[in-house]
Amino acid sequence: MKITAEICVIPMGVGVSVSGFIAACQPILEEAGLNPIVHAYGTNVEGEWDDVFAAFKQCHQTIHDLGAPRVFTTIKLGSRSDRDQTNQDKLDSVRAQR
Amino acid sequence: MKITAEICVIPMGVGVSVSGFIAACQPILEEAGLNPIVHAYGTNVEGEWDDVFAAFKQCHQTIHDLGAPRVFTTIKLGSRSDRDQTNQDKLDSVRAQR
Amino acid sequence: MKITAEICVIPMGVGVSVSGFIAACQPILEEAGLNPIVHAYGTNVEGEWDDVFAAFKQCHQTIHDLGAPRVFTTIKLGSRSDRDQTNQDKLDSVRAQR
Amino acid sequence: MKITAEICVIPMGVGVSVSGFIAACQPILEEAGLNPIVHAYGTNVEGEWDDVFAAFKQCHQTIHDLGAPRVFTTIKLGSRSDRDQTNQDKLDSVRAQR
Repeated sequence: MKITAEICVIPMGVGVSVSGFIAACQPILEEAGLNPIVHAYGTNVEGEWDDVFAAFKQCHQTIHDLGAPRVFTTIKLGSRSDRDQTNQDKLDSVRAQR
Repeated sequence: MKITAEICVIPMGVGVSVSGFIAACQPILEEAGLNPIVHAYGTNVEGEWDDVFAAFKQCHQTIHDLGAPRVFTTIKLGSRSDRDQTNQDKLDSVRAQR
Repeated sequence: MKITAEICVIPMGVGVSVSGFIAACQPILEEAGLNPIVHAYGTNVEGEWDDVFAAFKQCHQTIHDLGAPRVFTTIKLGSRSDRDQTNQDKLDSVRAQR
Repeated sequence: MKITAEICVIPMGVGVSVSGFIAACQPILEEAGLNPIVHAYGTNVEGEWDDVFAAFKQCHQTIHDLGAPRVFTTIKLGSRSDRDQTNQDKLDSVRAQR
């Protein structure tokens, strides 16, 4: 099952500056071949369900490994059985309507 | 890695009444031993990461199998390395503060 | 516009134990007459849009006032123009399908 | 209170193609001066709490007005009392860590 998804990880118990933790996730998502696009409220990816969630698990675990005793992660994801649709396709559809 | 999590599935392209789809997820989460608690904005579960996400995949796929051409799912999850904490523990902590 | 909604507030920069902050939101939501139901991943409420978001603003601000230098809040909300539906109605619909 | 936020609106009961609805929100967010950045899982904005949520209400209502009998909206938002931080600042911080 192909999906598009967004992940947003929040390290807790490590102060207010969290960009170092979030930066550590980016190579994980890239190396998994998920075409990551980072934005100000998360990172959007796309791929097979199992590949996406293996990488999300690694991201979440990495935040702990870097010293966060508590990690809060939010995920949005979607899939379509009627046709393939990438993250770029979704953006293009919105822009074409304007 | 033990986690607590919340899943909320939204079938798209099948009209406004979606409770039948959501009801179909409950036995999946129960049979996976995830201690599901359904509420008005999702279902809370707890367990090992792999068990939780295997069941979430099955829920998401089931919504497609029941006829929804598009499925949108939101997930929140958390884990702690400093101590174990169940969903009930979290609730008890909030209530103890009042 | 009547809505149902879920709010989940995450204080950042104040350590791993956050139940005291979350507990402080409950009387705000109660006094606003939003029929709050706390669960392990947020609090569900219902009411007019303006009343709900006035209370959500007060919750978010209260977390700052209690000492959190950064606050992250996630919200889910829904409304229907075809008919009224409370949080309890949503739960009853799911349970009736089982 | 200055905030950054992300909104993602899901029209229900109108089929699987929803880009027209999402496109209708963009001018609302622009005209409110919220510096919107659309991405594949929502639109990021920034501004005063009241301005942001007045525009979010208008977006949500517009989806109904365009014919959706049910609307599901997810929002993430954050604020800091220790310093100002825009959406671009957040992105720059992540990129500077790599």
